[in-house]
Amino acid sequence: MLRISFIRNKFPLKQLKPLQFRPLQLQSIRYNSKMSGEENLLLIPGPIVISERVRQAQAIQSLAHTSPEFISIFQKVLVDLRKLFKSSNPKDQGLVIAGSGTLGWDITASNLIYPGEDVLVLSTGFFSDSFAECLKVYGANVDILTAKPGEVVPFEEIESQLQKKSYKAITITHVDTSTAVVSDVGKISSIVKSKSPDSLIIVDGVCSVGVEDIEFSKWGLDYVLSASQKAIGVPSGLSISFISERAITKALNRPTQSTFFASLVKWLPIVQNYEAGKPSYFATPAIQTVNALKASLEEILESSLDQRFAKHHETSSKFKKNLESIGLKLVSTSEEVSANGLTAVYYPEGIKGSDLLPLIYKKGIVLAGGIHKDIKDQYFRIGHMGVSALDDSRGDTDKAFKVIKESLEELGYKSK
Amino acid sequence: MLRISFIRNKFPLKQLKPLQFRPLQLQSIRYNSKMSGEENLLLIPGPIVISERVRQAQAIQSLAHTSPEFISIFQKVLVDLRKLFKSSNPKDQGLVIAGSGTLGWDITASNLIYPGEDVLVLSTGFFSDSFAECLKVYGANVDILTAKPGEVVPFEEIESQLQKKSYKAITITHVDTSTAVVSDVGKISSIVKSKSPDSLIIVDGVCSVGVEDIEFSKWGLDYVLSASQKAIGVPSGLSISFISERAITKALNRPTQSTFFASLVKWLPIVQNYEAGKPSYFATPAIQTVNALKASLEEILESSLDQRFAKHHETSSKFKKNLESIGLKLVSTSEEVSANGLTAVYYPEGIKGSDLLPLIYKKGIVLAGGIHKDIKDQYFRIGHMGVSALDDSRGDTDKAFKVIKESLEELGYKSK
Repeated sequence: MLRISFIRNKFPLKQLKPLQFRPLQLQSIRYNSKMSGEENLLLIPGPIVISERVRQAQAIQSLAHTSPEFISIFQKVLVDLRKLFKSSNPKDQGLVIAGSGTLGWDITASNLIYPGEDVLVLSTGFFSDSFAECLKVYGANVDILTAKPGEVVPFEEIESQLQKKSYKAITITHVDTSTAVVSDVGKISSIVKSKSPDSLIIVDGVCSVGVEDIEFSKWGLDYVLSASQKAIGVPSGLSISFISERAITKALNRPTQSTFFASLVKWLPIVQNYEAGKPSYFATPAIQTVNALKASLEEILESSLDQRFAKHHETSSKFKKNLESIGLKLVSTSEEVSANGLTAVYYPEGIKGSDLLPLIYKKGIVLAGGIHKDIKDQYFRIGHMGVSALDDSRGDTDKAFKVIKESLEELGYKSK
Repeated sequence: MLRISFIRNKFPLKQLKPLQFRPLQLQSIRYNSKMSGEENLLLIPGPIVISERVRQAQAIQSLAHTSPEFISIFQKVLVDLRKLFKSSNPKDQGLVIAGSGTLGWDITASNLIYPGEDVLVLSTGFFSDSFAECLKVYGANVDILTAKPGEVVPFEEIESQLQKKSYKAITITHVDTSTAVVSDVGKISSIVKSKSPDSLIIVDGVCSVGVEDIEFSKWGLDYVLSASQKAIGVPSGLSISFISERAITKALNRPTQSTFFASLVKWLPIVQNYEAGKPSYFATPAIQTVNALKASLEEILESSLDQRFAKHHETSSKFKKNLESIGLKLVSTSEEVSANGLTAVYYPEGIKGSDLLPLIYKKGIVLAGGIHKDIKDQYFRIGHMGVSALDDSRGDTDKAFKVIKESLEELGYKSK
């Protein structure tokens, strides 16, 4: 064969010098509970700082995806997802696929909505609008109810729209990472159940699962999609979601398939097998990140979930009050709609983001700019999820507040 | 808001006991150059054993996806991919997305082939057939030329089919992981260039990139798709691919989008920005695994690629000869079509896979069963890519040969 002889002629095997592998010293894994000056403090709304336990789990050597070791890891993950999502129906199903939060939109649009069906999208910002775009790509007819920046869609508008028109599904962005507002999914679900019980209730929980309460069974949800790198506390790289028995039935009866990689017809038997302790193959899972997810779910479930949410709320409220105490204005317009995993705050008059954020970065803290299309240059965002919200000894949000205040003052802002 | 008051009433914040975080001792990262009895030796055709350098890179703390640190990591990866694929056209583009090898099929089918177009699939086994299935999901008309198990599609058949019918694209599975045969992509490309120069040449390189020579520019390829966990030597979780200027033009002119997460219209500006050192966002990349990819590409490119391929060939030939020396028969029917990253070998008469593989596993080596539909219970597979093929001091394939021989003899096989 040409290929092999070519190599042979060029590099006769006997004359090959041995390949060199540089001897490696193990780098110590640095702890991140304190700012060391070497490593920035990551306080964006995801990816978030991962715990040492998760980091160690991420560093395992590769395993065969069908080995007993990995089956037991994946099985534990799928069982624990039932607890995280508070599902009581064994016919609901957790799903973990190598990908990102965005993949959950494709899973929705290509499995749970048939082409030509009507979908109502509640938009609270950038991410809701992108979800709507994805739904359209796969053929849905989309109506959008748009909230003002910093607000949620009023319940009455939802109710009245559901009375005007019949929808096969409604999508809710639980926390829109662009504006830091939280929608009341429990209340919206009760409206849908009362006015349009056949509509699937689909929740984008990318920035809510693990920080805001989600009652999958009690609220009657059909699909909640999330990702690994926010409040679930794992490196980025996984689409993590949970699907109801009713939505599974709809996906399995879809007349034609619209996707291959995101197809639930392909994936459901796989995760069902893994959860039953049996190997199964469609596409190779992200072994190390699934193991990190196992570690993080165990860490999360060791305390009570409600306690976890309450602690995030406590950290978030204190941080937001601190910012308000120096005269800053939050993007979220009331405490009721303020998300607990992140804060969006307007730059004060006369202060530019292009001055403030680089200055804060120089002081070792990584924050995020705004992304809502109407106000994106007017505000910035601070994430406080996972260890940064839960571990008081780290003092992450206090450090962030101190550095934001200092930096604003250096730029001429007079704190109130 | 109901949600928050519910939590407040149930767990008054002041009475919360502090959340407990177990103090963690850092686990030493175990070296895998020797079998320790604690950790199995992973010799399946992917995921493969990762080097310590890659493992350390996988264990970094999270970074912001738009931070200067991550931009510089991703930029280096995209530049190095040009070298790995041997591309000389700056308008070709590398692509790295959180996902798996399978996602590359969706990228092909939903971007590079328009619905209703004719595609010729060269099938050498399970993976070629699955690729064909994916193409059909997105509306391609697929003709399949199927090789006998252990063989490749003869050049004359390809030539004659291209003369009979006009195809918009041809797909070649470079190494079909199900049968361990390698197709001569260079030769097939020259046939396509001569008989059907307008057909896009699409190569499934999941089990070939990093172990078999690929000359993207010289052979005139249009799309090579791969994954992180095989010869590229990185944990699973990434779709890694390379796309030609011509294929980019076709993707960007697609009349309608068939996918969102896998859309090149979405992804191309992102990777172009990162490669130019600018932040960009569509979906969050798998930060840690991209950093591991950077480490692995640097490791790969420190030696010459041709030397790397030659060493894989040397290890593979020696291992295959050893197996044949005790009377075993390879699935690949000639040396010319034998892949260098894995070996598929028939069970000798009277030996069952369900006895042999568990016995080998008990002795600490993880191998894989057969998956070609016609012969799947008749053979097994051994992977030898990356450190297992390159680092003679590990002795991985010699250990595997010894354990296979011993185990066969324990089951009553008389070595020839």
